[in-house]
Amino acid sequence: MSKPSIPKGTRDFGPKAMVRRQWMFDTLRRVFKAHGFLPIQTPSFENLSTLTGKYGEEGDQLIFKILNNGDYLAKVGEDVLSSRESKSLTPLISKKALRYDLTVPFARFVVMNRNELSFPFKRYQIQTVWRGDRPGKGRYQEFTQCDCDIIGSESMMCELELVQILSEGLTALNVPSFRIHMNDRRLLQALASMGGVAEEHFAEWTVAVDKIDKVGVEGVIRELEERGLPQSASARLPELIEFRKHTNPIAALEALLPMVQEIGEGMEAWTSLKELVEQALKTGVKMEALRVDPLLARGLDYYTGTIFEVLVDDAPVGSICGGGRYDDLTGIFGWPGMSGVGVSFGADRIEDVLNHFEAWPAMSEEGLDAMVVQMAGGDFSQELHLTQDLREAGLSVELYPDPVKLKKQFKYANDRSVRWVLVLGENELATDTVVLKDMRQGIQEVTSIAEAIQKIQDSVSV
Amino acid sequence: MSKPSIPKGTRDFGPKAMVRRQWMFDTLRRVFKAHGFLPIQTPSFENLSTLTGKYGEEGDQLIFKILNNGDYLAKVGEDVLSSRESKSLTPLISKKALRYDLTVPFARFVVMNRNELSFPFKRYQIQTVWRGDRPGKGRYQEFTQCDCDIIGSESMMCELELVQILSEGLTALNVPSFRIHMNDRRLLQALASMGGVAEEHFAEWTVAVDKIDKVGVEGVIRELEERGLPQSASARLPELIEFRKHTNPIAALEALLPMVQEIGEGMEAWTSLKELVEQALKTGVKMEALRVDPLLARGLDYYTGTIFEVLVDDAPVGSICGGGRYDDLTGIFGWPGMSGVGVSFGADRIEDVLNHFEAWPAMSEEGLDAMVVQMAGGDFSQELHLTQDLREAGLSVELYPDPVKLKKQFKYANDRSVRWVLVLGENELATDTVVLKDMRQGIQEVTSIAEAIQKIQDSVSV
Repeated sequence: MSKPSIPKGTRDFGPKAMVRRQWMFDTLRRVFKAHGFLPIQTPSFENLSTLTGKYGEEGDQLIFKILNNGDYLAKVGEDVLSSRESKSLTPLISKKALRYDLTVPFARFVVMNRNELSFPFKRYQIQTVWRGDRPGKGRYQEFTQCDCDIIGSESMMCELELVQILSEGLTALNVPSFRIHMNDRRLLQALASMGGVAEEHFAEWTVAVDKIDKVGVEGVIRELEERGLPQSASARLPELIEFRKHTNPIAALEALLPMVQEIGEGMEAWTSLKELVEQALKTGVKMEALRVDPLLARGLDYYTGTIFEVLVDDAPVGSICGGGRYDDLTGIFGWPGMSGVGVSFGADRIEDVLNHFEAWPAMSEEGLDAMVVQMAGGDFSQELHLTQDLREAGLSVELYPDPVKLKKQFKYANDRSVRWVLVLGENELATDTVVLKDMRQGIQEVTSIAEAIQKIQDSVSV
Repeated sequence: MSKPSIPKGTRDFGPKAMVRRQWMFDTLRRVFKAHGFLPIQTPSFENLSTLTGKYGEEGDQLIFKILNNGDYLAKVGEDVLSSRESKSLTPLISKKALRYDLTVPFARFVVMNRNELSFPFKRYQIQTVWRGDRPGKGRYQEFTQCDCDIIGSESMMCELELVQILSEGLTALNVPSFRIHMNDRRLLQALASMGGVAEEHFAEWTVAVDKIDKVGVEGVIRELEERGLPQSASARLPELIEFRKHTNPIAALEALLPMVQEIGEGMEAWTSLKELVEQALKTGVKMEALRVDPLLARGLDYYTGTIFEVLVDDAPVGSICGGGRYDDLTGIFGWPGMSGVGVSFGADRIEDVLNHFEAWPAMSEEGLDAMVVQMAGGDFSQELHLTQDLREAGLSVELYPDPVKLKKQFKYANDRSVRWVLVLGENELATDTVVLKDMRQGIQEVTSIAEAIQKIQDSVSV
């Protein structure tokens, strides 16, 4: 028997991490609710056909497929097996796949439930997603996304609300110096066409440009060359990457204007970005939190308008949030023309950032308020009774399960950071009292049970 | 493009179901915390070897395996492919599998984190599990378990605490007339040996007997015959199944005693069951909620002592909770001799039961407190400002995203069951007032903004 382990890119969460994560989810849920978003959840696995073809070529390869149960080879043709082609075999032995994000399942949900929903429909969804990415810093194969989307309105008001939510959510989570990078895929398309990138190569161009933070401008230029795109496709990248350094997003947009005018395309996108930034600033989003980033690409195929990505200065991980507008995500499921826009908070990366900067707010461990000792030869029923009285007073309490030596029981209480330990000795049983030990102060006293409960309650509610 | 669907045995949860489920999880979490259990979570997929061989032969077949990413056939030998044996191929093309329950991952977690934990370790875990079962009433391929386990103590006190938790949890969840069936695997073993079942056939015998609720005594007798077990193996089943009808569990145990004495085995189990029942009754667990059920088997391989299963009279589903003691679950991961015991609440079946009996407590929809109308040609900034003021007052508020006709906006407000709608018309903008419409009463008035906020807050806090 080998030593147990867990798959690479996955993690266990112990009690300390759980308390923090629970706080993180509760905080975001509060923000989503304040904006009137409704909760939904979708299944962990979808039909394979629901997911494939939505995330670009690279994305498709990272989707985890589930092997059909039973004798899955029974109906596979001899030719496929002998060809040894994994790609042809996959759809024959796998019908289901794990969620890759929450956006595509949401679109599928909207189409299936369109008659029961009121539009514009605003939903939030906090669930795990899975990607077969090479594990690394801030890159997990299993992670939790906290998404909110508005579907059924083309109004820029929706983008504005999402920028507010990003700002309010990250502020409430205590994330230090975050920057909401904004762009518009139509503007990006204009810039690509200016670089002589033909429409059919636009997706390729964005996949390369999207890596600019990881591989730098040189890396992108190299990839574009390798993909056989014209040199002009990368000519202005060094100039464009400068825009994101502007700490004043309005000034950045003004500086970008001549180029947009020169191309004669993307003007609509430029105007709506400007309006978005102006309105966001009016509602109290801080200027230093907003960046215009004309090279922001987002690798996913389905974005068509505004796109977002949130970065944190000096963070150990890449973007912590992302999102954008998709004009026709439900179209792929047979209901065209429903425009939507959404953002996603990457809970695991936010956790990494808060760990890195030690930026967690003070938070009480999810622990134990009090422990009742089980005495060897004591009165078990009375001890049990006392435990229940404490619980009925709203406290988190344990009766030690074995009547072992007091030393061992007190060590356990100490390990669990319990402040109050109660002992029912012979004297106490005879006089209807209890020994109440304050582990923090290192003092103990004999009191009535009612007084002991009161004292513990007072200390907990502080 | 085909109509979108979701895999059989899975479900989407819309806003209404989500509010109820959230309440269910919060309620159980509160009970677990009151008893000092600590939260953990484990990854959705484990190494395949972690899971296989733990759930019995039938269980193993229901584990969902994940196909390796990339060209998974590349290293598969020609002989395996040409043999067309799914079973031999699986371990070569799949290294990971989805959680089948929370107990085995918990044992793996305990072994991997043994140096950081204080024992006895009490944890709760609320997570999804997956089983490739044939979908049906109350049988899902994806469902949520809410588990609590105590590991590192052999004390019957642990079983007692779990019976308390079952009783407290199900009562808090408003589950009607539930019955906690109890047995002990050692007693079951004694009964099997009395029936002439050899030790090596015990597992088979329990698998058959475990189906007694689904297929009846006759069905079990048939299966035992088919498996080639002696006729004596089923001789006393009709007699034994009567015990579970005893509404007095102490009386049931007394009635069972002569048989235990006759076998000369299982006496220890009988005694500890009796003590457990007696103590549970003392702590306030209701007698009608406790059943002694000498045929209760639980299909899982790892149980060795007390076992639990909770049933609800006239429910549309099978057991809603289950659990038991396992003497050596961590032994399979290299750390023998750690006894543990746990129970699991099946959230989805409890949901089914509450739906069936319409037993949900009154619960406010997770909705919207107020909506601000967006006027065509109105002052968008002022409307946005008003929306934010309402949110800062702790309310859940939406500004309608498009300046469409009032009729459409009010229809949306109505669909979302919003009570308060606010309108900033020309007059109101000029006089620093707002039209506040009470959708429930069908009346409206012009008030100051401060008064409007106060009024909405008062109505929400009721």
